[in-house]
Amino acid sequence: MLTLDQINAASATDFVALLDGIYEHSPWVAQAAAAQRPCATLAALKHSLVQAVRQAGRERQLALLRAHPELAAKAALATPLSAASAHEQGQAGLAACTPQELARMRQLNAAYHARFGWPFILAVRGPRGHGLTRAEIIATLERRLAGHADFEFAEALRQVHRIAELRLGDRFGVQPRAGELVCDRAEALAAHSDPGFAELGQLTVTYLSAAHQACARQLQAWMQEAGFDEAGVDAVGNVVGVYHGAARSARRLLTGSHYDTVRNAGRYDGRLGVLVPLAAVRALHAQGRRLPFGIELLAFAEEEGQRYEATFIGSGALTGDFDPAWLEQRDADGVSMREAMRAAGLPGHMPAIAALERDPARYLGFVEMHIEQGPVLDALDLPLGVVTSINGGRRFLGEVLGIASHAGTTPMDRRHDAACAVAELVLFVERCAAARPDVVGTVGLLQVPAGSINVVPGRCRFSLDLRATTDAARDALAADVRAELERICARRGLAFTLESTLCAAAAASAPAWQDRWEAAVRALGLPVQRLPSGAGHDAMKLHEVMPQAMLFVRGGNAGISHNPLETITADDAELALAAFTHLLEGLARE
Amino acid sequence: MLTLDQINAASATDFVALLDGIYEHSPWVAQAAAAQRPCATLAALKHSLVQAVRQAGRERQLALLRAHPELAAKAALATPLSAASAHEQGQAGLAACTPQELARMRQLNAAYHARFGWPFILAVRGPRGHGLTRAEIIATLERRLAGHADFEFAEALRQVHRIAELRLGDRFGVQPRAGELVCDRAEALAAHSDPGFAELGQLTVTYLSAAHQACARQLQAWMQEAGFDEAGVDAVGNVVGVYHGAARSARRLLTGSHYDTVRNAGRYDGRLGVLVPLAAVRALHAQGRRLPFGIELLAFAEEEGQRYEATFIGSGALTGDFDPAWLEQRDADGVSMREAMRAAGLPGHMPAIAALERDPARYLGFVEMHIEQGPVLDALDLPLGVVTSINGGRRFLGEVLGIASHAGTTPMDRRHDAACAVAELVLFVERCAAARPDVVGTVGLLQVPAGSINVVPGRCRFSLDLRATTDAARDALAADVRAELERICARRGLAFTLESTLCAAAAASAPAWQDRWEAAVRALGLPVQRLPSGAGHDAMKLHEVMPQAMLFVRGGNAGISHNPLETITADDAELALAAFTHLLEGLARE
Repeated sequence: MLTLDQINAASATDFVALLDGIYEHSPWVAQAAAAQRPCATLAALKHSLVQAVRQAGRERQLALLRAHPELAAKAALATPLSAASAHEQGQAGLAACTPQELARMRQLNAAYHARFGWPFILAVRGPRGHGLTRAEIIATLERRLAGHADFEFAEALRQVHRIAELRLGDRFGVQPRAGELVCDRAEALAAHSDPGFAELGQLTVTYLSAAHQACARQLQAWMQEAGFDEAGVDAVGNVVGVYHGAARSARRLLTGSHYDTVRNAGRYDGRLGVLVPLAAVRALHAQGRRLPFGIELLAFAEEEGQRYEATFIGSGALTGDFDPAWLEQRDADGVSMREAMRAAGLPGHMPAIAALERDPARYLGFVEMHIEQGPVLDALDLPLGVVTSINGGRRFLGEVLGIASHAGTTPMDRRHDAACAVAELVLFVERCAAARPDVVGTVGLLQVPAGSINVVPGRCRFSLDLRATTDAARDALAADVRAELERICARRGLAFTLESTLCAAAAASAPAWQDRWEAAVRALGLPVQRLPSGAGHDAMKLHEVMPQAMLFVRGGNAGISHNPLETITADDAELALAAFTHLLEGLARE
Repeated sequence: MLTLDQINAASATDFVALLDGIYEHSPWVAQAAAAQRPCATLAALKHSLVQAVRQAGRERQLALLRAHPELAAKAALATPLSAASAHEQGQAGLAACTPQELARMRQLNAAYHARFGWPFILAVRGPRGHGLTRAEIIATLERRLAGHADFEFAEALRQVHRIAELRLGDRFGVQPRAGELVCDRAEALAAHSDPGFAELGQLTVTYLSAAHQACARQLQAWMQEAGFDEAGVDAVGNVVGVYHGAARSARRLLTGSHYDTVRNAGRYDGRLGVLVPLAAVRALHAQGRRLPFGIELLAFAEEEGQRYEATFIGSGALTGDFDPAWLEQRDADGVSMREAMRAAGLPGHMPAIAALERDPARYLGFVEMHIEQGPVLDALDLPLGVVTSINGGRRFLGEVLGIASHAGTTPMDRRHDAACAVAELVLFVERCAAARPDVVGTVGLLQVPAGSINVVPGRCRFSLDLRATTDAARDALAADVRAELERICARRGLAFTLESTLCAAAAASAPAWQDRWEAAVRALGLPVQRLPSGAGHDAMKLHEVMPQAMLFVRGGNAGISHNPLETITADDAELALAAFTHLLEGLARE
């Protein structure tokens, strides 16, 4: 087994030899990374190799891709596989392809190569490391074949790095067992899904559904098994675990995230931030260690706002922000929240809910780990990022009203085309948001209602989702967009409506807590990447009453989220756990 | 009763006195028009008055609007009504308003005045001349209150001209009885409507429905009553009337239009072009006159393509352009066209249909009268227009494919937003079409399928409807739009599909026949306004085998069509009949 000491002590030539085969037929990668030693951690070594490829320029990157064999059963290959490739492809069961699978894969490989000019590359051991199924491999090939060439080039390089990561793990004899457990538990939780989705193999866990209650029971059991001193379900369905500090009355670090999901969700959104602290406490308990502070882990029952017109039910209960009127709200099936609570064995009345409000004086602060749900870390080839601020946001639903008229008979200068006006607005939002730092703007809903191919649109509906790192930037964007809409409609002789549907304040990370995350990332030998959170998180709620800071974990597949393709690797989960442990240790030393 | 001779012989002062009260409290209109005499026709007199207002400038036009009383029950008015206004409002039953109606009208009047700065003006006797209902008046007030100020200013002036037209009719003792009959018959035909629409008071007559067959029977009965020598229903459901020429074997003028409708249609689209020739033949027969040529009137059974994926079934049968495969096509309820034909008592086989093909040598040509279905004539205050060409068109359905991603977490420069790309295309189509003469381009369908307010659009569907007076201009526009779509998608890293769904050739009017329509319009004392037809018409089909030319009749409500608001006045219908009669007389003299 290779060690970091060997790596750091070796001559450049020996270093290249030690890493032979990590990057397929491409010793130049290790050569370029040799000067970056010493590497404090395996993560640092991986990072220096990744950086070598990132800085090599497109030609060498393309050569690296082309150095890889075509992905298929051994028998189908014109050129021999490297031993490592053969082993990996064997593990993935590619040697056992049916003739139909083989034919399909050959056909897709040929189409892929013809389209992009390099072979299809996939880390067939997958994010968990135990191998993708042949069906998964074929589905991935089909999906990526349809992508854009620039995107696919970057994705192929990311797969090369993932292959290297897995090979390095083997060579160092290091297996991310805790990270794998996080992945396995995310998978196990995903076995519970609401009716109508479970049958399709889709993950959907809405507030207080049977699947939701099953998740709560499972999380509670895991907390008990991990050695939490207390583990229970509270009056809004939060699963609450407490691991006392050395003194039972010591102040606590609050951490956690949500376990409900959107419809047809990914497996890590929210849940990662529960499973990682669970693993950390498990390790502490296994060592019989108590920290100078307690750890209170919250698996929040609700954050996604899917079943009721209410969000942050779980974290809002802790900040005294539960609207009593919510209890009478009814879901699509007419079930009130109060009825749903009682059916789930919860009290379903305000006194019990109001009692959940926390006294901030008893807490050090709140930290939340979360999958990024965006492409930034994946594009930078960085496993972790430190959140500077959770963006504030405003949402609007709008409609432009013009005059529907005959598409053939209405001259261009006599039109009052509602869709043209909205098209102008869409591009204004894009241009305006792109020109300002840390601002995003999206028109996600767009429709000409009851339109016809031969009718000039008389109406066009749209949505606006505007977010910024500060409330001032958010409001300035919203004001500019509204003013532009007014100008567009005045110029075109149109009317409009614009209804505000959401206004959320930005939540800047508490500097001291952001510093603690940064120190933890540095301790792993990784560069500190700061980024705002575009999505809202439970930390936004806790922000109202105590200091908070978040850590983001890279999402694969370009960070896609609210989607079954959402994924993280076991290695990244392991790094998240290591970072959280560093944060705990640092806090203990303060 | 006033006469044209009096009008033409009067001094300018007397002329103004003779027309006192035609334009409410605004003698300057007649003063400005006095120099335009002599007027050959009442239509010419009306036109010179309209022109006087058009040339007066915005200030005087505004004064004209403000000279009108508020529309309401007499008792509610602060200022006294003119006798004419009182009479008109009384005829409309406004004196009999319920307290609720009165309150509503006061409220709307106040809102209207506050919004626009002039009183709500409506020719309460309506397009037919016999008075709108109070409910119609209130609905019109509500609708126009929501409109754009520039549009409403023009509409208010048009209502002023319509009031003047009605008052002139009274003063001259002239009533457009034949035009009224056309309106009444359009109304009577509209009593037949398909199930699901009839209950809502909406007009929908699709091919071979029960309502469609009832319309055919009614048209046939009217043809018989009018004195047509032959009147029957042919193998595709066309109602065919023949009024022989002096010699029974004389060649025939072919004319007509369609009697099927779109869903929730107007009452004149197609039907006007049947009802006006019907009235003309009725008059000829009443006089016992035969022309040197026969008149063959076709009420085409199908032009709108609503029930089956086939259009121009009616006129196509005459040109041998009926696709035998259509017979097996099924509608949304699974009824094949053959079955629908047989259920309607038609043979439902090709030999009978093929026999409908006409020998062009037996015809002089084809003329079609049609409501404009566009805003041009209404905006110009002209009742009639001569069609120079029926535009060629191409239609496409397209979809841009990007990458759906989180609206909060995806930085602006990492997006592959399908809706932004389509927004660019929408504006390109608009810009490009506006920059070229006699070309129109429309994106009528626009949708982000399954979009969410917080998701960057991964897909966006759209349609293209591109039309031009020549096939070359049409194809150039289509090529430029496709090229731009390619550029947009390449720049943004997106893919697209674009499927051609229609390609129709342009049909220029036969010069000799266009000349005949122009001579007819001139004979009415009206200026000749030439315009292309943006919409397709049966004349496009006949164009393939014989010379054709069309006459357009002004549509009220800014020419809105395929809409229950589609309307023409009895006076304009009378003018259309007069123009057709002039065309017949001119042809008889040739």
